[in-house]
Amino acid sequence: MSLTIVGSVAFDTIETPFGRTERTIGGAGSYISLAASYFNTKPNVISVVGDDFPQEYFEMLKKHEIDTKGIQIKKGCKSFFWSGRYHNDMNSRTSLVTELNVLADFDPIIPEEYQNVDFLMLGNLLPSVQSTVIERLNKRPKLIVLDTMNFWMDTMLSELKNTISKVDILTINDEEARQLSGEYSLVKAAKKIMSMGPKYLIIKKGEHGALLFDKNEIFFAPALPLADVFDPTGAGDSFAGGFIGYLTNSNDISFNNMKNAVIMGSAMASFTVEKFGTIKLQNLSKNEIYERVQKFINLVKFDYKPGTGL
Amino acid sequence: MSLTIVGSVAFDTIETPFGRTERTIGGAGSYISLAASYFNTKPNVISVVGDDFPQEYFEMLKKHEIDTKGIQIKKGCKSFFWSGRYHNDMNSRTSLVTELNVLADFDPIIPEEYQNVDFLMLGNLLPSVQSTVIERLNKRPKLIVLDTMNFWMDTMLSELKNTISKVDILTINDEEARQLSGEYSLVKAAKKIMSMGPKYLIIKKGEHGALLFDKNEIFFAPALPLADVFDPTGAGDSFAGGFIGYLTNSNDISFNNMKNAVIMGSAMASFTVEKFGTIKLQNLSKNEIYERVQKFINLVKFDYKPGTGL
Repeated sequence: MSLTIVGSVAFDTIETPFGRTERTIGGAGSYISLAASYFNTKPNVISVVGDDFPQEYFEMLKKHEIDTKGIQIKKGCKSFFWSGRYHNDMNSRTSLVTELNVLADFDPIIPEEYQNVDFLMLGNLLPSVQSTVIERLNKRPKLIVLDTMNFWMDTMLSELKNTISKVDILTINDEEARQLSGEYSLVKAAKKIMSMGPKYLIIKKGEHGALLFDKNEIFFAPALPLADVFDPTGAGDSFAGGFIGYLTNSNDISFNNMKNAVIMGSAMASFTVEKFGTIKLQNLSKNEIYERVQKFINLVKFDYKPGTGL
Repeated sequence: MSLTIVGSVAFDTIETPFGRTERTIGGAGSYISLAASYFNTKPNVISVVGDDFPQEYFEMLKKHEIDTKGIQIKKGCKSFFWSGRYHNDMNSRTSLVTELNVLADFDPIIPEEYQNVDFLMLGNLLPSVQSTVIERLNKRPKLIVLDTMNFWMDTMLSELKNTISKVDILTINDEEARQLSGEYSLVKAAKKIMSMGPKYLIIKKGEHGALLFDKNEIFFAPALPLADVFDPTGAGDSFAGGFIGYLTNSNDISFNNMKNAVIMGSAMASFTVEKFGTIKLQNLSKNEIYERVQKFINLVKFDYKPGTGL
């Protein structure tokens, strides 16, 4: 099946207690497409960069069979740039610089070859841009997944709700689920959010795992307890890439198969945080991924015989 | 197998956003023994109360086949009293009143019938009192589980470390694990804490589940996502009671069986928080518990076939 990913391709400068990287490749579109590329998906990417974006990064993406013709290159303009510093607990960060540059007036153009796509992953971006992509597709994809963040809830809630109403699956973190719904209980929050349109909701809880909801059922995927987290940047996007990559490759959008996809997403996120930026995600083998998924299986496996013990 | 529980039996006054209860039965010894009582354990309790403690509470404990002859009644003295208020998120609380009363000079006397016990559960108490119980047993139990809290890390760390060195399993929460070890990563924290003596460590993460560690392996048990949490008081103690109750009844202290025990503990904790104080824990049926455990099984079950998807 075919997969199109919409998301920023950008420069990141990241400081963590373990070190610093300067202007390396980042952005939701980069992390999502790299993670999804391991699932034999040859993903299309819709994005925009300036002409400061080096050819070697395009080559790296192409090496992963990522189709970059949907990445517009704006002459005389600068790419999106973000700089942030993580604090000692790695759970909180300060944004130091956010330069929208080419993203400020991003008009998502869909190459003809990307039409009739089966799976659409909308990475975190301006909600109106995400909506525009859906509108510009000749045919509604089989599955649309939307990622977003609290910034859009603070600044353009009604546009965001409009976009949310058009998608099948929404992925947000626990604080964002609470903000969007006004409910503290994630069970109640999920009910409210699914009444806004999406049939499914994924709540990402970082080191505490992820919850997948449909109207009747809840699935919980743990996060892998790690000795060292070097850089949390892109963990949520890597999760999204593993999730949509697995679904695209299996072409099975049943709730049961989405559970597997959530585990795959969690596995891809667990790799990303082990090195700076996209480094780990650029250099994985199938065996490494299979071994990592086995760790998730073992982590929650127990052999209790129902109806015994009391 | 026989089980002895050491822990406070006390009065609690609790305020939550959902209401208030006045001087109802509380204390680690109450929650642990009630939770453990469902596992056919007829637990012994070592504790102390004042003569203000009503006979009806003793009758309630006896109805659950809890042996109360190890609960000393101090004439002319008052029982331990705690009062607290939970905030809107139910994850933080303020202690309003803590009156040690009879606990201030608690000398744990072990009835002759409690000697040669197989399983010993030391609920949160002064570390020196917990140590004294171990010393006063003629024979070391097959398994000793210790619960404690940050208060003792702040005020009497060396006594606490001495007690920790004598037990098989320590249960603490994630913040306490970080404080005790000086490590932020729970994987590193667990390694350090197990080097202090315990062969196993359980890290309780409240609404985020619980981790069970031995030297080589990690098991993760989720918490059940609940629509309503009325009162978190006693959740950790109910967890401990379900855990030790299941182990005692099955008489199997392998790591694999401890995984089942962690699930049972999580199930018992999930009941406790649904009503005020011990109310829910006083009135459970075996069927309710089996159904609850099935929810935990379903919550993390997925049918991924290893080596597929990429």
